[in-house]
Amino acid sequence: MSKFMDEDFLLTGKTAKKLYHNCASKMPIIDYHCHIDPAEIYQNKRFADLSEIWLSGDHYKWRLMRASGIEEELITGNASNREKFEAFASILPRAIGNPVYHWAHLELKRFFDIDIPLNSRSAGDIWEAVSQRLSKDNSLRARGIIKSMNVKTIVTTDDPTDSLRWHKKIASDDSFDVNVLPCWRPDMVMGIDCDNFPEYIQKLSAADSNNDGTSAVGAKSNRNSIKSLDDLKSVLRERMNHFAENGCKASDHGIFEIVYAPAFDEEISAIFKNGLEGKTVSADDANKFKYYMLSFLAREYSRLNWVMQLHYGVLRNVNTALHSKLKANAGFDCIGSASGLAGLAKFLDSLNITGELPKTLIFSINPNDNEAINTLAACFTEEKVKGKVQQGSAWWFNDTYQGMKRQLISFAENGVLGNFIGMLTDSRSFTSYTRHEYFRRILCDLLGGFIDTGRYPDDMEHIGGIVRDICYNNARDFFGF
Amino acid sequence: MSKFMDEDFLLTGKTAKKLYHNCASKMPIIDYHCHIDPAEIYQNKRFADLSEIWLSGDHYKWRLMRASGIEEELITGNASNREKFEAFASILPRAIGNPVYHWAHLELKRFFDIDIPLNSRSAGDIWEAVSQRLSKDNSLRARGIIKSMNVKTIVTTDDPTDSLRWHKKIASDDSFDVNVLPCWRPDMVMGIDCDNFPEYIQKLSAADSNNDGTSAVGAKSNRNSIKSLDDLKSVLRERMNHFAENGCKASDHGIFEIVYAPAFDEEISAIFKNGLEGKTVSADDANKFKYYMLSFLAREYSRLNWVMQLHYGVLRNVNTALHSKLKANAGFDCIGSASGLAGLAKFLDSLNITGELPKTLIFSINPNDNEAINTLAACFTEEKVKGKVQQGSAWWFNDTYQGMKRQLISFAENGVLGNFIGMLTDSRSFTSYTRHEYFRRILCDLLGGFIDTGRYPDDMEHIGGIVRDICYNNARDFFGF
Amino acid sequence: MSKFMDEDFLLTGKTAKKLYHNCASKMPIIDYHCHIDPAEIYQNKRFADLSEIWLSGDHYKWRLMRASGIEEELITGNASNREKFEAFASILPRAIGNPVYHWAHLELKRFFDIDIPLNSRSAGDIWEAVSQRLSKDNSLRARGIIKSMNVKTIVTTDDPTDSLRWHKKIASDDSFDVNVLPCWRPDMVMGIDCDNFPEYIQKLSAADSNNDGTSAVGAKSNRNSIKSLDDLKSVLRERMNHFAENGCKASDHGIFEIVYAPAFDEEISAIFKNGLEGKTVSADDANKFKYYMLSFLAREYSRLNWVMQLHYGVLRNVNTALHSKLKANAGFDCIGSASGLAGLAKFLDSLNITGELPKTLIFSINPNDNEAINTLAACFTEEKVKGKVQQGSAWWFNDTYQGMKRQLISFAENGVLGNFIGMLTDSRSFTSYTRHEYFRRILCDLLGGFIDTGRYPDDMEHIGGIVRDICYNNARDFFGF
Repeated sequence: MSKFMDEDFLLTGKTAKKLYHNCASKMPIIDYHCHIDPAEIYQNKRFADLSEIWLSGDHYKWRLMRASGIEEELITGNASNREKFEAFASILPRAIGNPVYHWAHLELKRFFDIDIPLNSRSAGDIWEAVSQRLSKDNSLRARGIIKSMNVKTIVTTDDPTDSLRWHKKIASDDSFDVNVLPCWRPDMVMGIDCDNFPEYIQKLSAADSNNDGTSAVGAKSNRNSIKSLDDLKSVLRERMNHFAENGCKASDHGIFEIVYAPAFDEEISAIFKNGLEGKTVSADDANKFKYYMLSFLAREYSRLNWVMQLHYGVLRNVNTALHSKLKANAGFDCIGSASGLAGLAKFLDSLNITGELPKTLIFSINPNDNEAINTLAACFTEEKVKGKVQQGSAWWFNDTYQGMKRQLISFAENGVLGNFIGMLTDSRSFTSYTRHEYFRRILCDLLGGFIDTGRYPDDMEHIGGIVRDICYNNARDFFGF
Repeated sequence: MSKFMDEDFLLTGKTAKKLYHNCASKMPIIDYHCHIDPAEIYQNKRFADLSEIWLSGDHYKWRLMRASGIEEELITGNASNREKFEAFASILPRAIGNPVYHWAHLELKRFFDIDIPLNSRSAGDIWEAVSQRLSKDNSLRARGIIKSMNVKTIVTTDDPTDSLRWHKKIASDDSFDVNVLPCWRPDMVMGIDCDNFPEYIQKLSAADSNNDGTSAVGAKSNRNSIKSLDDLKSVLRERMNHFAENGCKASDHGIFEIVYAPAFDEEISAIFKNGLEGKTVSADDANKFKYYMLSFLAREYSRLNWVMQLHYGVLRNVNTALHSKLKANAGFDCIGSASGLAGLAKFLDSLNITGELPKTLIFSINPNDNEAINTLAACFTEEKVKGKVQQGSAWWFNDTYQGMKRQLISFAENGVLGNFIGMLTDSRSFTSYTRHEYFRRILCDLLGGFIDTGRYPDDMEHIGGIVRDICYNNARDFFGF
Repeated sequence: MSKFMDEDFLLTGKTAKKLYHNCASKMPIIDYHCHIDPAEIYQNKRFADLSEIWLSGDHYKWRLMRASGIEEELITGNASNREKFEAFASILPRAIGNPVYHWAHLELKRFFDIDIPLNSRSAGDIWEAVSQRLSKDNSLRARGIIKSMNVKTIVTTDDPTDSLRWHKKIASDDSFDVNVLPCWRPDMVMGIDCDNFPEYIQKLSAADSNNDGTSAVGAKSNRNSIKSLDDLKSVLRERMNHFAENGCKASDHGIFEIVYAPAFDEEISAIFKNGLEGKTVSADDANKFKYYMLSFLAREYSRLNWVMQLHYGVLRNVNTALHSKLKANAGFDCIGSASGLAGLAKFLDSLNITGELPKTLIFSINPNDNEAINTLAACFTEEKVKGKVQQGSAWWFNDTYQGMKRQLISFAENGVLGNFIGMLTDSRSFTSYTRHEYFRRILCDLLGGFIDTGRYPDDMEHIGGIVRDICYNNARDFFGF
């Protein structure tokens, strides 16, 4: 009988404990995909209280509260931060088995030395204790948190129009030695079927790569407007170079499904023109445009030696009523059933034929795709590169105890687990680096279990190497940080 | 090493045992979805032998017998009840790992104090012992069984044309204090692509809500025939009121897939007219009609504060040869691959936009849908309501040890397990209340395991509350029994 | 803490050990589906070294090497056998959790008495030791390996044009008493959308069933060319009789998806004519032709009392660049997402209606299909036949520890596990009979666990019978070997 979330949390066997405490816990963190705001790092943000740091932007927690009948006023509304926190505390014990239950307690332990379960009875004391710490302790400001978690590299998520001024400022600040790098996320460029497409392309035209970061985006742009497909490609190339100059090593795409829809340049030119003029673009034409742009960009990634990340399958904003009120990323997304695998296979193949397939990470929101992805990934390899195409870590709704275990087992059974580049937070919160701990414990428990049950030799050199590589080294080498 | 199905069956840890014996086993049963015949409850049916109570209507058992090469004569044919029982006993030990193996032995233990495994050697003795008990013991008649299992509420499954006379009789019988409530199941109303649609609508026209239950349905109906869509909706509203007056709190739909197919009233009127006249209705038109009717009914459920149950994905009657001979529900259904999730999401959203989404339980026959359903459910919430939209318990083919465990884990990892309304039997048999025991043991084993492995605090107040809620309180509050 | 792969490998409980050592390990092997070359059995092939026996044809191992960045030169290229082996040894420890890791070590143990883990440090010693044994020990030639593993029956995979001369030679060789039987695999007959279809049909025309096996296929054929659908069917019938005369009891089909596409004979005749003339055949027409031929063949299988094996869902040769270089079966296949279940259900039903459904084994490459397949299989039964339609053992990418466990649990929970015909190798290698051992250990661990946890009575008569049946007896009876 184990104690609640003690030092051997999730570590059931002797070898698992050894692997975690001697190998995994000692490795630094590379958070290769997240959504935190680099400005808050540069400005070394101080957080007022647990609601600001925990609840103000975390739709995982909002979903649990809403599902429990908590009023929106106490979630995203005008209630006080303390009331919101107490509402969250009141429902948390009911979320038994949910990763948020573990994440919340890991964060309370690691950052605030709170060692009692959070519930309605304990909420008041915890609120007070944490607020006091946050108001005084500099190690609980943004940079302190990052340093205390031994984070070496953070990769944010950035629109092509971004000036990257905050990344530049952080890079030139000698007092902070963590790499904070941009990631190229051109979803808006693909959105030819979105209302704001012409407006976005206008904004892209105005994005000035010579801007030094001190003036607003586009303020000094002396470039002409994007009027043709060639213009678009040329501006995108320029922006990618701008990203590369600022340390970018990765791109990221959020797509519902990869539809294989090759078309001639002329056709795409015409479709783009229609989109630019605000005309309605058919679903077929939109698919052609998206496939064309994705292929164009992938070839550029190959040239730049960037990693291509593909996140697919999410059905977004399914609750129209609350989405209208609260906008995107507020907790109204779910797992879609469509799988982009056949299209994805042809897409990867078309790039590979010409030698222009970049290193690729595949993330499906549907856990049923694990096996298909891992078997597909193994079809695209490159000499001297470990795991050139591979499944990314269990993503979003799969970032759970069972979800991570299933992803690891599927990766191992259908590929070479030793090549896996491991965990990321995908988070908007500064305290979620403990998810790396959560992942590492699950990883060590799985691998330690293999040894304890005679399924792998008790050979600490090999197994320790694998653990350290998955925790840190593989990501460093894969991205080239 | 545990003994075969002893008092700690399926309970592997200390806390699991405590939770089951102290909390779960003491809670009454709400069987919120089943297919038993209320007449048999009113008439307090006596069963002649184990074949009558076990084999006469149980296609789960038939499937195991057929798959083992047993002749149909010994399954649904003219062989004697004893021969049928012995045929079943002969193959049961081969069905290791099948839930029927456990259900059968749980039933033998709980109702007949039989504590030896059923097989060809023991079949004779068990047959004799049980037949004797059945012939003498009043506690083994329908009402006795129900009372002995601490059942508080039973919800049957009823066609809109049903007079509900048996429900009324039971309600006014002071000697029996179990609630036996109807559930509105309008599948025939949707069946515009079925041969018997005009005939069914005729029957619906004749259903007389003023009928006092003593005369046959429609005998005294003084209503005009249904001739238009408006007529249909008006009669359905009248019938729903009739159900509501007789304690109905829930509807149920069996559908293959929810196809999002909105259409104007005029179009639906025309399609309905074609259907009524026995004309062929195209697949597209049928989808439009079904989507329209489902939306209409859902809005009525919202008005009546009924729960909407959606059961989808079953490929029915796939064996034409045996289906022609034995009719529906004889064991020739299987899991279909289509998933109604995208259509389902739009359907729920369209109701939610106008504030007319009723409480909803989603059941897919395909276990691969677990995660998608649980993430979708969390997108539709209502203030003050716990788990307004939620996945129903593991259904039919999923009602197995692993199937239930997977459903519980998916519910927990993607939602708030404390809101789950728990188990039902979905059964045609009076002895299957032990499935609630089976479920509760699996639930307690899972939750107790969380505590024993340090994944949840050893806090009996919270965990005991969760167990009691999932076993009973949540269903009571959700349906408003 | 267990030792690495000792005698109780994968056997966690007392009963599992008893079941494996007393029952499973003592049963002979029927390898009812593999890809080994009967000529090599007849000629009693001697293997030069570990690379020849292990690496020269094993795309499972190639995939692990490629995914780890090993150069193709060291995989399928011109490097020496020893260099290839050392390259494989260098990456194997990274493939923790992959079945190849276990298979490789089981093979080293069982055939070569090597009891140390294979890695870069041990590779040299192992290479030497194994090479010495291979060069001297006759029990390590093809026939010796087969005999040492207690193999009673081997079923190869053969094209309809095959003369079966090697099968005949083996059958008439009194010094070797293992049955080596052909399996009818007519994939090329279905390939009307393949470039080489006319050429293949020409080859089929020339296949001479009266050929005594000493001359090349077709050398003496005195049959006219196939010019019509009737000719095709008549030649196929003749070839099937030829296979039957040589001991064939099973057919096998590799298909992407079963599309239900019934059509009239006249239509199929015209489509066939187009195909024969090398004209382009539309996807719809190809589906009709394939469905027609599959139905025709299935009816013949029923007449011949052959087992029909359906393998579906593989996305083949997805890497065009390497496929062009290395041809098929070189490791560039993956799990497709499409599921043939609805079409499959209609196909089985159409055969069953006329009483022409043969015994059928269903293999999907997508593990998500497990439950659907098992529930479908139970819909098609025959009196006196155990498990007439059933899921085949976990196939290819699913042939892993978890994959096999999941398949067994799904089979048990949705059917009668005692009817399962068990494992096969599906292999091109002579040393992979240890996969039967791997399977049997997993099976015994699962079933033993049921007893140790009180989920099945401690009744060695029944459980021992089930184990022996799944290991051997069921396959023998199902195929009629």
